[in-house]
Amino acid sequence: MTVVALSGGVGGAKLALGLYRALPANSLTMIVNTGDDFDHFGLRICPDLDTALYTLAGINDPEHGWGRRDETWTLMRAMESLGGDTWFRLGDADTALHVLRTHRLRSGASLSSVIDEIRSRLAIAADILPMTELAVGTMVDTDAGEIAFQDYFVRRRCEPRIRAIRFAGAAVATMTAQVRAALACETLQAIVLCPSNPYLSIDPILAIPDLRAALERRRVPLIAVSPLIGGAAVKGPTAKIMAELGIESTPAAIAAHYAGLIDGLVVDSADADAASRIPLPVFATPTLMKTLEDRVRLARFVLARARELTVRGRPR
Amino acid sequence: MTVVALSGGVGGAKLALGLYRALPANSLTMIVNTGDDFDHFGLRICPDLDTALYTLAGINDPEHGWGRRDETWTLMRAMESLGGDTWFRLGDADTALHVLRTHRLRSGASLSSVIDEIRSRLAIAADILPMTELAVGTMVDTDAGEIAFQDYFVRRRCEPRIRAIRFAGAAVATMTAQVRAALACETLQAIVLCPSNPYLSIDPILAIPDLRAALERRRVPLIAVSPLIGGAAVKGPTAKIMAELGIESTPAAIAAHYAGLIDGLVVDSADADAASRIPLPVFATPTLMKTLEDRVRLARFVLARARELTVRGRPR
Repeated sequence: MTVVALSGGVGGAKLALGLYRALPANSLTMIVNTGDDFDHFGLRICPDLDTALYTLAGINDPEHGWGRRDETWTLMRAMESLGGDTWFRLGDADTALHVLRTHRLRSGASLSSVIDEIRSRLAIAADILPMTELAVGTMVDTDAGEIAFQDYFVRRRCEPRIRAIRFAGAAVATMTAQVRAALACETLQAIVLCPSNPYLSIDPILAIPDLRAALERRRVPLIAVSPLIGGAAVKGPTAKIMAELGIESTPAAIAAHYAGLIDGLVVDSADADAASRIPLPVFATPTLMKTLEDRVRLARFVLARARELTVRGRPR
Repeated sequence: MTVVALSGGVGGAKLALGLYRALPANSLTMIVNTGDDFDHFGLRICPDLDTALYTLAGINDPEHGWGRRDETWTLMRAMESLGGDTWFRLGDADTALHVLRTHRLRSGASLSSVIDEIRSRLAIAADILPMTELAVGTMVDTDAGEIAFQDYFVRRRCEPRIRAIRFAGAAVATMTAQVRAALACETLQAIVLCPSNPYLSIDPILAIPDLRAALERRRVPLIAVSPLIGGAAVKGPTAKIMAELGIESTPAAIAAHYAGLIDGLVVDSADADAASRIPLPVFATPTLMKTLEDRVRLARFVLARARELTVRGRPR
């Protein structure tokens, strides 16, 4: 039995870690957003893939949610003294991965193979797959103009008002062979949309036409976990973005956003009363993941509820 | 009055620091060997230029002689855990310079301009010039085959026996415009060959045809400082290489190596009796540079002796 989890960064990786611990070894496949990937000082940086790697390897920084634990910042201080940009914080250990990845990519390796090499080195018994090998760039149209994701998210701290979001290159991108195989796997039991930001982190994955089509053709339940708790996001700009896009920050809006794709939605207990307004099976449970136990418990809940679902999707 | 110093790494940079402190601000120009430069993980690394920058900025590691003081090694540990090569030690702060330089070079900047930008940021009041913008690679023919300099020097710790040394690309290389200007400067008073390894660190500079010709055309004294003390090198493989090349490790051999180019030679007091076998003015003084005072004292000695020399070189 295998499970596929679609994930962005921090929030999604928390549930992915729960799934990883709840499932037998080598049963989880993460399909990870690469729309946030960018080049900084010529280094290829893949924030969501790295968060997935660090989280599943147990070497993530539990405080910031991104980067590595026991990180040092000598390089960044030196960069500052040399006059280099410092808006994107490159930890010393983190930079080793960026340097190694960039070198491998420039030598002709695919992103999938580089990530799998790192995954193997970190002894992670789960597949971590970039959604595509091709360039997809999350672009945010704001009151400050259209800016690339990291510029919006890190440099400008999500301050500009969002008017629209697009995924440059997505329409002509294709899922990787590994993603295709994972979604077609005979032993696949369920697909989970992790509680990442739907608009910035999950949508880029869904924007890849053949990946979306493969999800729609699925024979197994697809269950989403709402990133909202009582109308607010645990971390990050989800609720702010929903407000700016004129969307109520409610589980019903999340369900509507994923309409036609998901078979059921897990919401926080605080949002249990939302069920009546959602034309889908809705399951309420505490979704705040503070501890590893929270993550595993929510993962088990999600997997158990997925088993109860009937697959909807498009008629085959 | 300006002084030009030709230098390789550690030993040369020590005297260069002495010259820097002995001279008024903005009076020293270093012409630095780039034959050791190489790509590691796709990062452009320039060991001798970086030693010059760090030494003159006072941020060099006084213990190792290369790299930065107060360095940390988090990146290297992470690289090891990710399966990357670790034979070349990338310090965290040092890597900031490699990353910044590589990015600037890939963006189209010249090595000269990148080094000058860093020099300016580090508030160094001396010019630090790469000998050329073109690729010159020091190649060492050994009993283990022909290998690139860093492979010989760092990875194999100078253990293979040297049969010959060549500077790939040097014959078609040209000095930079800045080097040309420094050597043609109206206020130039002296040129110093620092006590770097003549075969590995100074010869690559002299192997650039127009740079060598400009030295030969000079109107000012050119004085060399022997890297030997009593037949041994203070640090590094100079004496071992001389033995392998069938050369006696004596100041006379150094003088013969630089014959036709230099106007005088400074030797250590321990080698004072060598003067009788050298057909050039020879000046003996303690050349071991343990302290900053040693460096400044030797620099002042070299400058004073240079003033006494008659320019030889080729007839003009």
